Amino acid sequence: MQYNEVLDNLKIYEAGKPIELVVREYGVDAKDIIKLASNENPRGCSPLVIEAVKNEASKMNLYPDDSMYELKEGLADKFDISSKNVIIGAGSDQIISFALHAKANQNNAILMARTTFAMYEIYGRQTGTKILKTPSHTHNLEELLQMYKENKDIRVIFLCLPNNPLGECLDTKDVYSFLEQIDKETLVVVDGAYQEYASYKDEAKKIDPKELIEKFDNVLYLGTFSKAYGLGGMRCGYGIGNEEMITALHKLRSPFNITTLSLKAAIVALKDQEFVQKSVAENFSQMKRYETFTAENGFDFIESYTNFITLKYDASQSSSSIAQKLLKKGIIVRDLGAYGMNSLRITIGTPEQNDRFFDIYKTI
Amino acid sequence: MQYNEVLDNLKIYEAGKPIELVVREYGVDAKDIIKLASNENPRGCSPLVIEAVKNEASKMNLYPDDSMYELKEGLADKFDISSKNVIIGAGSDQIISFALHAKANQNNAILMARTTFAMYEIYGRQTGTKILKTPSHTHNLEELLQMYKENKDIRVIFLCLPNNPLGECLDTKDVYSFLEQIDKETLVVVDGAYQEYASYKDEAKKIDPKELIEKFDNVLYLGTFSKAYGLGGMRCGYGIGNEEMITALHKLRSPFNITTLSLKAAIVALKDQEFVQKSVAENFSQMKRYETFTAENGFDFIESYTNFITLKYDASQSSSSIAQKLLKKGIIVRDLGAYGMNSLRITIGTPEQNDRFFDIYKTI
Repeated sequence: MQYNEVLDNLKIYEAGKPIELVVREYGVDAKDIIKLASNENPRGCSPLVIEAVKNEASKMNLYPDDSMYELKEGLADKFDISSKNVIIGAGSDQIISFALHAKANQNNAILMARTTFAMYEIYGRQTGTKILKTPSHTHNLEELLQMYKENKDIRVIFLCLPNNPLGECLDTKDVYSFLEQIDKETLVVVDGAYQEYASYKDEAKKIDPKELIEKFDNVLYLGTFSKAYGLGGMRCGYGIGNEEMITALHKLRSPFNITTLSLKAAIVALKDQEFVQKSVAENFSQMKRYETFTAENGFDFIESYTNFITLKYDASQSSSSIAQKLLKKGIIVRDLGAYGMNSLRITIGTPEQNDRFFDIYKTI
Repeated sequence: MQYNEVLDNLKIYEAGKPIELVVREYGVDAKDIIKLASNENPRGCSPLVIEAVKNEASKMNLYPDDSMYELKEGLADKFDISSKNVIIGAGSDQIISFALHAKANQNNAILMARTTFAMYEIYGRQTGTKILKTPSHTHNLEELLQMYKENKDIRVIFLCLPNNPLGECLDTKDVYSFLEQIDKETLVVVDGAYQEYASYKDEAKKIDPKELIEKFDNVLYLGTFSKAYGLGGMRCGYGIGNEEMITALHKLRSPFNITTLSLKAAIVALKDQEFVQKSVAENFSQMKRYETFTAENGFDFIESYTNFITLKYDASQSSSSIAQKLLKKGIIVRDLGAYGMNSLRITIGTPEQNDRFFDIYKTI
C-alpha cells in the first residue's frame, strides 16, 4: 500500500532498552539490572502520589475529567498564571507534537541545536517540514541567530533548557536577548523538562514561565512530571503560553489524552514540592561523584544542569563498546554514538546504584 | 500568530460532562450523580487488574517497556496472529490518528457513515482531507459503495462495527462482500471497539481479526480495553493488520505512548476473560429493561449491539431538553442533537443505576 510521502522520511523509534528486554536478550537477572539510560527519577515519586493512585485504581473504568480543571488550577497557582495559559499533554512530548502540527509544514523549516531532544526532529518529520540544526552539538545562540536570519522560512525554534541529552544550559538573560531578535510569527518552544534541576543548581538558569510568556507572545514553555516529579511512566506534561496560542494548540488535543491515574498522580505530585526538592538535592550531591570519577579516570564530562551526565571519551576509547560491556553486566546507559558523539549519557542513580556503577565500570 | 491552515477547520473538542463538572456547575452532590454518557463499563474492571495496578504503582517513575512485548504477545495469542500484526495505541483513538496521518491528506478524501465515532472526522480534519458521509445516519453499505465508486479520491473508509453512537451493527458476511469491492490502495478501518458486545449478542456480527486481515490486506482492525475490559480511563487500544501496514503505522507512533500502569492493566485484563463475559452478559440483560421502558413510554430505540442504547423521540419531545432535565437531577446522558438527531444515547448502567434512571426519568 502507498502511504503519505512524509512516512518515507520516518523511522521507527527505538527507545532505550527497558529492563525487561535486557532480561530477555542477555539473560541477566532482573534484580541485577540498573537502568541509568532514560533519566527516570531513581528515587521514584512522592509516596503521597503512590497512595493517591492506589486509591484511584478502582476508577480505571472512568475517563478522566477532560477539562483537567484541578490540574490546570494547580499549575496556574504554582506559576501565578491563569489556567487559560495551560495545556496538558501525554508527556510534554505531545505538546511538542501539537506545536509542530500547528506551525510546521512542508513549505517551511524548524531550527534546533545539533544534539538535542530527539522528538523535535521526529515530530518535525511527521509534518514534512525542513529540519535545520546548528553546527555545534550544544546550544549556541550565535549560530541559532545566524541561521534564523539566513533562513526566512523558519517557523519554529526549539531551545532545550537545560539540554537533553547533553546537560548544558544557557543563561536566562542570554535567552531573553535572543528571543528579542525573533519575529513574532516564529514560535519558540522553551523546553523546561529539566528546569527543576537547572534552577536549583544555578539561579541564572532559572526560567519563570509567567515572566517568559508576558515578555514574549510567541514563546511556548514546556514542563513535565516525568523528571523531578518522578512520574515518567505516567506520561503527563504541560505547556504554558499566551491564551490565544494555548487555544490554538487545544484544537489539536484529542479528548482524554492522559489517563485517569496520570491526572490524579500529577495533581497530587504538584502538592509535594518537598519531594521534588529533596530529590533534586540528592541528584546533585550524587552527580559530584561522577565528576570526580571522570577526572580520576582521565576522561571528560559536560557540566550538567539535569539528572544525568554526559561522559566524553577521546579517540582511544569507544563509547559504544563501553556501553555494550556495561549492558552485559546489567548496567543500561545511553550511548550517544548515534548523535555522532563518542559519549555516554548516564542518569544519576541512587547512592547504591551509583556505587554499583562505579564498581562495575572499574572491571570493564 | 498565524497557524497552519488545517487549524481553521478544527474545533476544540468538548467531551461528555464528567461527574466533577456537574458537581461544580449544578451543585449536585457527587454521590447523587450517575454518568451514563461515556459508555464506560459501569461494572469497573477486573479485580485482578486493580490488584496488579496497585502493585505496580511504585514503578510510576519508570517508562513502560516500549516494545510492549508482553501485551503484544497476549493479543497475538488471543487472536492467533503474530505480534508483528499488532500496534498499541493510547486508546484505539490514537491508531485512528495514525491511520489517517498515514493515508489521508489535503488532496484526497475519507468516507464514513453520517453518524459514527466523532474522532474519525476530528483526526481527519487534522490532515486537511475531505470528509465524506453517507446520507443515512446508520451504516448503509449500498450508500457507502456508491459514494466510494463516485469519488475516486477516497483513500480511507471507516466501518464502526457495532456503531458508536447509534448501536447498530452490520452482518460480517455483508461487510466481507463490501470489502471485496474496495481497491487495495484504500485503507478500510474496521473499528471493533464494541465487538465483545456485538459478538456475544449475535454470532452473525462477530469479526475474527485473523480471518479479516488474511482475507483483506488493506484492512486495519481496531480493538480497545476501554469498553468491555472496563479500562476507559487507562487509554489503551490496539490495531491489527498485515505486517507491512503495521510497520508503516509504527512510524507514526512515538515512544512510550501508553503509561506504565496502562500497560500492566491491559496485560492482566486480557487474562481475565471471565470478567469480560460476565460484564457483557449483565449489560444485555439490563438493556432489555430499557427496551421495555421505551415501548411502555411510547417512544422508539435503535436495536443495540453495544453497552449503550439510543432512544429516539418524535417531534413532540426534544432530546436536548430531556437531557438537560436529567442533568439537573444528576443523570448525565449524551444528547445526539449535535448530530442532527432527536435522540439520546444512554450507557447501560448497573442494575442500581438503571433503577435510579427509570425512577428519575418518570419525574421529569
